[in-house]
Amino acid sequence: MLDVIAFDADDTLWHNEPLYIDIQSRFKKLLSSYHSSDWVDRKLFDTEMRNLKHFGYGIKGFTLSMIETAIELTEGRISGGEIQKIIDYAREMLETRLEPIEGAEETLAELSQSYPLMIVTKGDLLDQEAKIANSGLAQYINNIEVVSHKTRESYAAILSKHKIEPHRFLMVGNSLKSDIQPVLELGARAVYIPYHLTWVHENNIEQELPQDGYYQIENIASLPELVRKISPNLNALS
Amino acid sequence: MLDVIAFDADDTLWHNEPLYIDIQSRFKKLLSSYHSSDWVDRKLFDTEMRNLKHFGYGIKGFTLSMIETAIELTEGRISGGEIQKIIDYAREMLETRLEPIEGAEETLAELSQSYPLMIVTKGDLLDQEAKIANSGLAQYINNIEVVSHKTRESYAAILSKHKIEPHRFLMVGNSLKSDIQPVLELGARAVYIPYHLTWVHENNIEQELPQDGYYQIENIASLPELVRKISPNLNALS
Repeated sequence: MLDVIAFDADDTLWHNEPLYIDIQSRFKKLLSSYHSSDWVDRKLFDTEMRNLKHFGYGIKGFTLSMIETAIELTEGRISGGEIQKIIDYAREMLETRLEPIEGAEETLAELSQSYPLMIVTKGDLLDQEAKIANSGLAQYINNIEVVSHKTRESYAAILSKHKIEPHRFLMVGNSLKSDIQPVLELGARAVYIPYHLTWVHENNIEQELPQDGYYQIENIASLPELVRKISPNLNALS
Repeated sequence: MLDVIAFDADDTLWHNEPLYIDIQSRFKKLLSSYHSSDWVDRKLFDTEMRNLKHFGYGIKGFTLSMIETAIELTEGRISGGEIQKIIDYAREMLETRLEPIEGAEETLAELSQSYPLMIVTKGDLLDQEAKIANSGLAQYINNIEVVSHKTRESYAAILSKHKIEPHRFLMVGNSLKSDIQPVLELGARAVYIPYHLTWVHENNIEQELPQDGYYQIENIASLPELVRKISPNLNALS
């Protein structure tokens, strides 16, 4: 018995991480005369982690972290023109149309006939709104929640705002840290759909996952079948 | 008769623009060997306007615009160390505790006894949430809406979500463009409280303001008195 099915957006409904990886590889090329690709990766990750509490998730924070890393790794010798290139990456990222995950639209279309659907996503508000609007999927979604961090507290606030009991809430996503663990800890249910390129930070969980209410599937196209098992009242579906 | 009183946050509940002006004056000092202060102001404003649709409002977008302006105005000769200083400004801004507007807390405390109160603010989500949490004012607020842009459409979405009829909604703020015009156009009411340092973009309105439902006061401390006139059912107040 479910009241709401909620979806993560990036890398659950559309391919997002490949865009970051592409830009990051161009960033490494930009710095290739100074440092090895591995070392740039490592320093960029450190800078992102340090900046997370100030800048949050999203393209603008990623860009500021790339600029800082470039300055640090070149000991200030990076040129203005090269930094301009990094800012141009940001604008390019913000304008890129993201490719939908295979089966996402069909799954949302099917499930929306029986359940209210929600998107719970984190990042820059403007950016996440634009991605949702451009995805063509908003028509299936009843509520959109953009949060700064996906923690137990932020999920609890969403459940309380919409008056949903935890065991009647199902969250679907590709991040153990953001979509699965905090949701299970609240006593709600969560479906983990691994994505082949998930950012290391997102699966970096320290505690063991609670097993109650935890499901894993390989592909979003299998979700309606799983939901029928979890919540047999889904009669509208064959 | 009002169902909800909604407040802008920056420069309505706390002093925000002075922080931007302070950082901008340090930015101008940083570039003073290249260009006059007026010219830097003008080019930065142009860059901000050009970037608004990509980066939105808030400190991260402001910082990226400062970096771009610095590169452009120095023809790329700005050093990595100087750009690092600009990023350090951003972190400093994000950590600054903002000073409350005189009378704001008393006004919220008084009005919250008779009306549900809402904050409608735009900018970076993480940043706006932190400012609200640090303000000590959240205890008086029933709903917080962080939006990417304050347009007629975004206000209409808020009213519809909370099932509020326009003429029963009162918005209070310091920006004609963001807090007053779109609200009046919807048929709702708006109280303009001018702030001595409002960013020029925020009062740059092209059409004449509708006069229906428009009020202006000099100080937020006068708001309860105005509300008693607008909505005489506010019996709880003396």
